[in-house]
Amino acid sequence: MNSLDKLIEQFEKFPGIGARQARRFAFHILSLPEAETEELASLITSLKNTVSECHSCRRFFARNGGSSVLCSICDDTNRDQSKLLVVSNDSDVQAIERGQTYNGLYFVLGGTIPLLTERVNNKIRGGALKALVTEKTKDGLTEIILAFAVNPDGENTARYVETLLKEMLEQSNLKISVLGRGLSTGSELEYADPETIKNALENRH
Amino acid sequence: MNSLDKLIEQFEKFPGIGARQARRFAFHILSLPEAETEELASLITSLKNTVSECHSCRRFFARNGGSSVLCSICDDTNRDQSKLLVVSNDSDVQAIERGQTYNGLYFVLGGTIPLLTERVNNKIRGGALKALVTEKTKDGLTEIILAFAVNPDGENTARYVETLLKEMLEQSNLKISVLGRGLSTGSELEYADPETIKNALENRH
Amino acid sequence: MNSLDKLIEQFEKFPGIGARQARRFAFHILSLPEAETEELASLITSLKNTVSECHSCRRFFARNGGSSVLCSICDDTNRDQSKLLVVSNDSDVQAIERGQTYNGLYFVLGGTIPLLTERVNNKIRGGALKALVTEKTKDGLTEIILAFAVNPDGENTARYVETLLKEMLEQSNLKISVLGRGLSTGSELEYADPETIKNALENRH
Amino acid sequence: MNSLDKLIEQFEKFPGIGARQARRFAFHILSLPEAETEELASLITSLKNTVSECHSCRRFFARNGGSSVLCSICDDTNRDQSKLLVVSNDSDVQAIERGQTYNGLYFVLGGTIPLLTERVNNKIRGGALKALVTEKTKDGLTEIILAFAVNPDGENTARYVETLLKEMLEQSNLKISVLGRGLSTGSELEYADPETIKNALENRH
Repeated sequence: MNSLDKLIEQFEKFPGIGARQARRFAFHILSLPEAETEELASLITSLKNTVSECHSCRRFFARNGGSSVLCSICDDTNRDQSKLLVVSNDSDVQAIERGQTYNGLYFVLGGTIPLLTERVNNKIRGGALKALVTEKTKDGLTEIILAFAVNPDGENTARYVETLLKEMLEQSNLKISVLGRGLSTGSELEYADPETIKNALENRH
Repeated sequence: MNSLDKLIEQFEKFPGIGARQARRFAFHILSLPEAETEELASLITSLKNTVSECHSCRRFFARNGGSSVLCSICDDTNRDQSKLLVVSNDSDVQAIERGQTYNGLYFVLGGTIPLLTERVNNKIRGGALKALVTEKTKDGLTEIILAFAVNPDGENTARYVETLLKEMLEQSNLKISVLGRGLSTGSELEYADPETIKNALENRH
Repeated sequence: MNSLDKLIEQFEKFPGIGARQARRFAFHILSLPEAETEELASLITSLKNTVSECHSCRRFFARNGGSSVLCSICDDTNRDQSKLLVVSNDSDVQAIERGQTYNGLYFVLGGTIPLLTERVNNKIRGGALKALVTEKTKDGLTEIILAFAVNPDGENTARYVETLLKEMLEQSNLKISVLGRGLSTGSELEYADPETIKNALENRH
Repeated sequence: MNSLDKLIEQFEKFPGIGARQARRFAFHILSLPEAETEELASLITSLKNTVSECHSCRRFFARNGGSSVLCSICDDTNRDQSKLLVVSNDSDVQAIERGQTYNGLYFVLGGTIPLLTERVNNKIRGGALKALVTEKTKDGLTEIILAFAVNPDGENTARYVETLLKEMLEQSNLKISVLGRGLSTGSELEYADPETIKNALENRH
């Protein structure tokens, strides 16, 4: 396989990219001035050196001369230390931050756990979550908020975390909560599924 | 205009039907055996004679030798008389019933009230709603649930009803509630809008 | 079944209409003033009395005091009598007329013939087509243009017509042609299928 | 701007990629083992060294120990030297090749020329096209096939090429042709636009 095809193959591994778009990416690279391809390659190889995984929440963050251990959220002592919100992926942290309502801490689990999974993927940071909960409980943590997708895999992931933390929850004042369910922005009753209707009724206020 | 074009024009007034589909409907009518066109025409002309508007909830229902005054829901004394759920349209009643959670009463307002509306459309049954609330309060009504779409018009309609019932609410034990908002079935955090994230966080449980 | 449900069932038979929209149609009928439902029913029952099937091209047309035998196209002696364009349905005639290029005659076959069809549907007017071609050949018909969809069923229908007319074509100067294939408006080469590319190359000019 | 944001910015320049997907690409890079990021970076920087622009048709091709001057098509003496097909982009060459009908030569113009363009973009290889046509005419070139998109920009590009080659066409036996237009695979008459209907009728055969 020649190097053009090898590059296209690499681009096909990018999330959401098929053969045709991967090829277009290769032509895009060919159209760039040399200085830009050099910069792109250099950013790719050095990314891990300039980006760290936060020791607390486990999300990736760019070190900027600042702490190389904690991300800006975990490093911010003004954040509410009594709440820990658990999400699947880095991008979920950004979604929650866009909501501008939550001011507590985060933990990025590293993925979801599909239904019927026999062995939990080693990307799932179960041990790190337990360790963080133990540590944060000493600092006043009182609530763990599970924020996973409203689908079978998201619900299975919530069950996994609940089982994981079961013992700790029984031995402490920690409570576990899940995000509210109901009608989302733009919902019309006529098109809402029965489960959403049920949740919207139960969570009326 | 010939009668083919007149019929197409009538079909174009059907909800969601454009010129091309209206024409196809006319060809469909032409393709039917005479017995079927007769039956269709007869069902159309007699519909109002066999269908009544429920005197209580105002939704349409087919009389079947049963009450010609109350629909099967309003006529059912096992329904919880302490709750009244207000919706825009008939089809919303069916959506709520599909949820199989709600066992109270309904009221069909007759539409939504768009933002910046100066004069409320005479299809909106504000007077009938007030009368029903007055009557049902004597029978033990304690909660009015507003179930409108999660969009500006739906929210404006909720404000209209709240204003309409303001005095009654102040003079009684009646409380008003709205359907819960949050993540709906299938929601992924990454694609949720900030408002939904905010509601999901506030309504966590 | 009550008459509301019966009407909904009739509407579900309309082309492209599902259960939910059929129900919405019924509510639309309920919302109409009586004069309008009467008119709609009357247009439906009388449609066949005011609309005729053209004795020549077989498409439906509204009689307007004019001929009740021939539609306005077949009745127009200025149309080019040397060409006969065969389509599946009435709506195809309108599509061709919108092109404002064709000035010949039409024949509406009455449908398409799906691949692997053992017995041709009795809606397909094979006999009437043969009779018309025989008659028009005496009046100077020289070309039959097959205008079916570019898909397996359309191609099968073309083969059916060619077989049907085979003998007549051999015994006369009649030629048979098909619509040109190639890039249609808006086509980009990158997204064109190989068959279209092939046709576009062969039909270059 | 930190290097994570810089990389995201580079990915946002990739064709068809928005902010959210660019960020996901960065997370993908972070998730790769070091050997793979090294390979990706190396393929990006070395791409231009292993890929050449064909001196004849101007498309990119991977050198594989073979000619570094001509691509496999231009280097293939079995291709029909009497035809030259002009396209906008590399990906169009692949689309035509997928059709498995064309066996002539190609020229990649380098883009399209939008309507109302005052100065033709310097990516457009007008001079190179003229030079190639001059050279190939000596080798027996007789037909230039314009294969641009069927939209205003594609038609404007065709006019540009015709004007560019006008003098050469007048002084030689060269003829210019365009891809055939008509119904493309899957077309149904009812949904075809009037222009396509017109072309399909004119190009009937």
